[in-house]
Amino acid sequence: MALQRPKGTQDHLPEGSPKLSLDVRASAFAQVQDTARRVLERSGAEFIATPLFEEAELVRRGVGGSTDIVRKEMFTVYYFGDHGGYVLRPEGTASIVRAYLQNGLRQLPSPLKLWTHGPMFRAENVQKGRLRQFHQVDYEVLGSTDPLVDAEAIWLMWEVVRELGLTGVRVKLGSIGDPSDREAYNAYLREVFTPHAGRLSDDSRDRLDRNPMRILDSKSAGDQALTLELGVRPMLDFLGEEARAHFGAVQGYLSDWRVPFDLDPSIVRGLDYYRRTAWELHHTQVGAKSALGGGGRYDGLSAQLGGPEVPAVGWAFGIERLLLALEAEGVALPAPEGPLLFLAAMDEERVGLAARLALGARSAARVEFAYRALKPGSAFKEADRRRARYAAVIGSEEAARGVLNVKTLATGEQRAVAAADLSTFLSEQA
Amino acid sequence: MALQRPKGTQDHLPEGSPKLSLDVRASAFAQVQDTARRVLERSGAEFIATPLFEEAELVRRGVGGSTDIVRKEMFTVYYFGDHGGYVLRPEGTASIVRAYLQNGLRQLPSPLKLWTHGPMFRAENVQKGRLRQFHQVDYEVLGSTDPLVDAEAIWLMWEVVRELGLTGVRVKLGSIGDPSDREAYNAYLREVFTPHAGRLSDDSRDRLDRNPMRILDSKSAGDQALTLELGVRPMLDFLGEEARAHFGAVQGYLSDWRVPFDLDPSIVRGLDYYRRTAWELHHTQVGAKSALGGGGRYDGLSAQLGGPEVPAVGWAFGIERLLLALEAEGVALPAPEGPLLFLAAMDEERVGLAARLALGARSAARVEFAYRALKPGSAFKEADRRRARYAAVIGSEEAARGVLNVKTLATGEQRAVAAADLSTFLSEQA
Repeated sequence: MALQRPKGTQDHLPEGSPKLSLDVRASAFAQVQDTARRVLERSGAEFIATPLFEEAELVRRGVGGSTDIVRKEMFTVYYFGDHGGYVLRPEGTASIVRAYLQNGLRQLPSPLKLWTHGPMFRAENVQKGRLRQFHQVDYEVLGSTDPLVDAEAIWLMWEVVRELGLTGVRVKLGSIGDPSDREAYNAYLREVFTPHAGRLSDDSRDRLDRNPMRILDSKSAGDQALTLELGVRPMLDFLGEEARAHFGAVQGYLSDWRVPFDLDPSIVRGLDYYRRTAWELHHTQVGAKSALGGGGRYDGLSAQLGGPEVPAVGWAFGIERLLLALEAEGVALPAPEGPLLFLAAMDEERVGLAARLALGARSAARVEFAYRALKPGSAFKEADRRRARYAAVIGSEEAARGVLNVKTLATGEQRAVAAADLSTFLSEQA
Repeated sequence: MALQRPKGTQDHLPEGSPKLSLDVRASAFAQVQDTARRVLERSGAEFIATPLFEEAELVRRGVGGSTDIVRKEMFTVYYFGDHGGYVLRPEGTASIVRAYLQNGLRQLPSPLKLWTHGPMFRAENVQKGRLRQFHQVDYEVLGSTDPLVDAEAIWLMWEVVRELGLTGVRVKLGSIGDPSDREAYNAYLREVFTPHAGRLSDDSRDRLDRNPMRILDSKSAGDQALTLELGVRPMLDFLGEEARAHFGAVQGYLSDWRVPFDLDPSIVRGLDYYRRTAWELHHTQVGAKSALGGGGRYDGLSAQLGGPEVPAVGWAFGIERLLLALEAEGVALPAPEGPLLFLAAMDEERVGLAARLALGARSAARVEFAYRALKPGSAFKEADRRRARYAAVIGSEEAARGVLNVKTLATGEQRAVAAADLSTFLSEQA
C-alpha cells in the first residue's frame, strides 16, 4: 500500500475528486477564507502571519499549563541534536500578541485590528469535527478597552456567518467580569461545592481548589446535575460595577445592529488573563460539538507573555466546523468555473501551434489545450469534461488561414475568430 | 524581555510596521501568491493542500535518506506518549504525489495540473535567504511524459517571474537522462575520479561509490577545481536517444515561446526517481544563494512511494527568495489601499451612530470609524494617517438632518451625502 497521510489530517482536494465532501474541498476552504477576508478587510483589519511552531513556553503561558491542550494535546517539535522546546501552535492568539510585542506594532494606529488564517495543531482523539491539523480564521484587536470594540468583533463574526449563507447560528454571550469579580465568584463556588466535594468528579475536585469556575465547564453529567441541584448562581450575578456597565454597552451595540444573541451564564474561561466579554457561536445542526468558534477579551495576556499591559479582544472560527455547518444546511457553494477556452489540434504537427495560441491567450483568460492531437468529436467531449465555455479545433485549414472556428459548447453556435484576435475575443467574454 | 519567535522564522507584518523589509511584508507575500494563482489557474492548475507534517518515511523516500535535508535538517514531530514518526514537511512534491495516490486523483482528466503554496521547514543554519520556516509556491503535473508538459511548466515559472516585474532572472536548463544513461555516466565518473580519490573532499569520496554525480554538485572548492582540471564531460554527453529527443523538444517549445534559457551541464539530481528535464531559475543580484527555484521531471517518484508508475514533472519557487530578488531590483509593489471612508463623531453620544453608519456601509466598501469622539481637525488627521480617501465628521447637526458632509481628503472638496444613501455613494466610488 502506498504511504498515507497522518491520522487526524486531511488533504484539500480539487473539484471532481472522488468522495469529495465539503470539508476537504479546496474551493470551499478558499470561499470561507475569501469571505472572511472581505468582511474583515472592509473593517480595516490587516493580515498578519506568524510561524507554525513557537517556543513551548509561549503556548504554556498563552493557553495555560493546566489545560488539556498543554497537558495532553501538544505536538512537540525537535531537530537533530539541538532543541526540544518548540511546539506546533494549538491556536493563534498567543502568537499574534507575541508578534505584536516583538515587532513594535504598538506604533501603528490604535486600536490595531489584525487577522490571520491557517493551520492549528492538537493531538486530539480524532472524530468528526475534531482534527489534529485543523484550520482557523483569527481576528484580534489590540489597544482598546472600549466595549464598542468587543461588539464590533462579535458583529464581524456574525457577518462572516451571514455572508456564507448560514442561518442556524446562535451567538451565546457572557461576561466573566474583572479579576476581583472572579475572585469573589470563586470564593462563592468553593463555599457552595466544598460540602458536596465527594459527589464531584475527580477532575472537578482538583479544580475546587485551583480554579472552581472550571467545574461549571465540566463534561461530567454528575457535575452538571450537582450544579443544577445546588442552584449555583451564575458569574453574571457577581459582575462589579465597571464590568456590568461594559457588558451592558456591548449588548446595547449588538441590539442596535440587530445581531441576535442569547445571554449564556454558563460561558466561563479558565485563565486569569481573560476579562469581561466572552462568547461562542453555535450551530443548531452540528451536534454535540456545535461550537463554530468563540472569542473574548483578554486584557491580561500581553503582560503574561512578558510585555506591557495591552487590552485586547479577539475570536477564532474553525474553518472545518463552518464547512460542516454549511454541509448540514445544504448551502450550495458555487463550483469554480472551467476554462473559458479549450484548444486542440487535429494532428500532431499542429499541437505546438495550439499550445502557442493557448499560452498567448492566457493573458486574457483561463485557456487549456490538448497535449496530444484529438479528433473533433473527442476534442469537444474533452472540452465538456473540463467544463470549458468555448472550444476550437485546429486543422490544416485553420492553421493555413489563421482563423479559428470557436464553438460555444452550451449552444453549439460557431463563430470565426482570427488567431491574432484571440486574446481580445476572450477578454470581451471573460 | 517578552517571548520571541523561534530562530529562523519570520512574522509577516502589516503595512506601516517598523523596520518593514519586503520579505516580511504580508502584502508582498499576498502579491506573490496572487500572481502565482493567476498565472497557474489560467493554465488550468487546480489548488491542493496537504498537511504540514507527514510520516517521516514519506520524506525519506521523497527527498532521499542520504541527503543533507533528511540527515541533518528534519524537524521531528512527537506527541505525548505515542508517535515519533512524523516530520514537518521540507518540500511539497512528495506530499502532493502521496495525496494524488491516496485520494484517487488518477480519475481526474490527465495530465492533472496541481498547485499549492505554503510553509516548508528545514533546520538549516540561518542566514539571509535561508530560513527554518520558509514558503514555497509549488506546481506539479501528473500523468504525462510529453515534453510539452515540461516546457509548459518552465513557461509558467517564467510567466510568474515576468508578471512580478523581475528582469534579472536566468533559466538554467539541463537533462539528466534516463536511469540507464545515468548508470553509464556514473560509471564514467567513477573511472575519472577514482585515480584522484585522495584529492576529493571527504563527502565526495563517500559519494564516489554511492552517487558520483553528486560530486559535480559539491560546494567544496577543491572538488570543483579537480572537476575542471580533469575536464569531466557533462551528463548531456551521455543522454540516450529518447532522452535526447525529449530534451530537444523541450528546447524547441521554449524557443518557440521566447523563453530565454541557458543550457547548464552542471545541473544534476541526486535521486534515482528523477528523469530527463531539470532546471533552475537564478537571479543575477541575489548573490551566491541565487536560486529562486527549480524543477524537474520525476517519473519514478510515485512507485518509490508505493504507488503505480505515474510520470510527473513540477517545480517550486521560494517566496522569500522571490521577495529578496524584487527588493534587489527595487521593484515597487503597490501599497494596499486605505479605507474608502473614515467616519468620526464629534461627541461621545454620537459614536454609536458613527459606528452604525460605518457598519452598514461596509456592504459597499472598506469603512473605518473612530471608537472615541474626535474634534474635526483630529478626525481628518486620523483619516489621513489611515490613508482614507473620504472622511466625514458627525455632529449634532449632521445627526439631526441625517446628512453627512463627505470630504475628499486629497482635494478638500466637500459634498453632502444623505446617511441613507451612504452605501450607494460608496459603491459608485469604489
